[in-house]
Amino acid sequence: MIERLAIVGVGLIGGSLALALREAGLVGEVVGAGRGVANLELARERGIVDRFTTDPAAAVARADMVVVGVTLGATAAVLETIAPALAPNAVVTDVGSVKGNVVAAARAALGARLAAFVPGHPIAGTEQSGAGAAFATLYRGHKVILTPLAETAPEALERVRAMWAATGARVVEMAVDAHDAALAATSHLPHLLAYNLVDQLAARDDAERIFEFAAGGFRDFTRIASSNPELWADIALANKAALLTACRDFASAFAGLVAALQADDAERLRTAFARAKAARDRCVVPESNHRE
Amino acid sequence: MIERLAIVGVGLIGGSLALALREAGLVGEVVGAGRGVANLELARERGIVDRFTTDPAAAVARADMVVVGVTLGATAAVLETIAPALAPNAVVTDVGSVKGNVVAAARAALGARLAAFVPGHPIAGTEQSGAGAAFATLYRGHKVILTPLAETAPEALERVRAMWAATGARVVEMAVDAHDAALAATSHLPHLLAYNLVDQLAARDDAERIFEFAAGGFRDFTRIASSNPELWADIALANKAALLTACRDFASAFAGLVAALQADDAERLRTAFARAKAARDRCVVPESNHRE
Repeated sequence: MIERLAIVGVGLIGGSLALALREAGLVGEVVGAGRGVANLELARERGIVDRFTTDPAAAVARADMVVVGVTLGATAAVLETIAPALAPNAVVTDVGSVKGNVVAAARAALGARLAAFVPGHPIAGTEQSGAGAAFATLYRGHKVILTPLAETAPEALERVRAMWAATGARVVEMAVDAHDAALAATSHLPHLLAYNLVDQLAARDDAERIFEFAAGGFRDFTRIASSNPELWADIALANKAALLTACRDFASAFAGLVAALQADDAERLRTAFARAKAARDRCVVPESNHRE
Repeated sequence: MIERLAIVGVGLIGGSLALALREAGLVGEVVGAGRGVANLELARERGIVDRFTTDPAAAVARADMVVVGVTLGATAAVLETIAPALAPNAVVTDVGSVKGNVVAAARAALGARLAAFVPGHPIAGTEQSGAGAAFATLYRGHKVILTPLAETAPEALERVRAMWAATGARVVEMAVDAHDAALAATSHLPHLLAYNLVDQLAARDDAERIFEFAAGGFRDFTRIASSNPELWADIALANKAALLTACRDFASAFAGLVAALQADDAERLRTAFARAKAARDRCVVPESNHRE
């Protein structure tokens, strides 16, 4: 049971978490904080938060659970602001898509309270954002990755794990570096590839014609190129080292495939395509009702 | 009205065309040809064809419409086989995803009958194949691209156009080169990228873990990597020149994006992502009930 939950950044992610915990009857008061008053008012109207403030430090006062749900670029500043105001029994977690830079910010900002910080990343979302898009079942059946540090207190980890489990999510643990490498390869790199393909095609003289004849495969392949540009530039830069590695690995393998095409090496193309099909058919979970 | 329709290669594409024409009441007899007798028997059981033969030349005898529905790699041989057997009033079309190499094969095989040949490409399909996967509404609302040659007889073009229009498809015309460049950019290159990403990730030591945490974006992005490997190696090689150009354009633009990431150039990333999102949101048609 969470007595007082503080959500700093009441968007799709933080808002859906609050709704899920309310539905589970596991939270007392919910206090929202953020910069956009209209969004916070909507969150109150929708029953996501009981009250709100634009001051993150005020929001976390006497809260036993603090969820930082802001963008990666804003996380360090929020951690610095809330650090002096945290209650003695407070546990702090975040929802960032990259963990290395959040952990660095937490080390710098939280000092002795680092033990109370549990880095987290719910693998869920839609293309919508803001409190208006939040819904209680967003996390049901989805994974939430926690990347606890050597310093993380076992009790803090357990409380964050229990919170996410109550939303219907499957909670797993990973090392910070392994998380960032895995997400670079399966999420951040595909976004870069999709953005690059669409941007490059859009610059052609025959762009309209090109897009006009695009089929369903192209639509699915480029769906993630409709994601929020500022958010994804933020994520790419926050995970720069792992993403650069993923980009180089991809470009090098792709150059090999292009060389095979150039050399009319049908066997090499067939073998690579068949390996990929087998891996995808075996490993990628079938479509669910949820997106992302 | 088609008196006798010959379908050489009674798979998803040719079979669905026959079913749609039957439903529209626009075809008399349908004769199927192919190499797999079990598939041809299934086509007869399902009412797709009235009778079948394993000899393409026998199938086209006295047919006024001949549809070559075999793979790109088999098209040249089929055209050579049927050329001497074509009826004087026969019109011939194909369904290949690449047009340049089909046109070259037709020029070599058909001689004086080239005027009766109308290169075609229905932009429709599913991940299934074979006569068992055929259904009458496959083409409804989808585009069919025809790439008539200077030599193509206007009457032949008109008969093929009317046939496809009767299936509910929207028939458009393009030049051969423009078709192959557009399909390289929006279909063949994305397949190569998706195959490459999955194959490269599958080769990693942590592949299982990586795939386990892949979210919906990855699933959509890589859906086309579950396509038939032999078919797609065939398509890539058949459209080699245009595909190599598309690959080089992509790789060069991608290197620019990676350089921006390396240089922490947030503005350049945001601008490219925003251009891509705007182009996709404006130009890519929303999801329909049909796939591909």
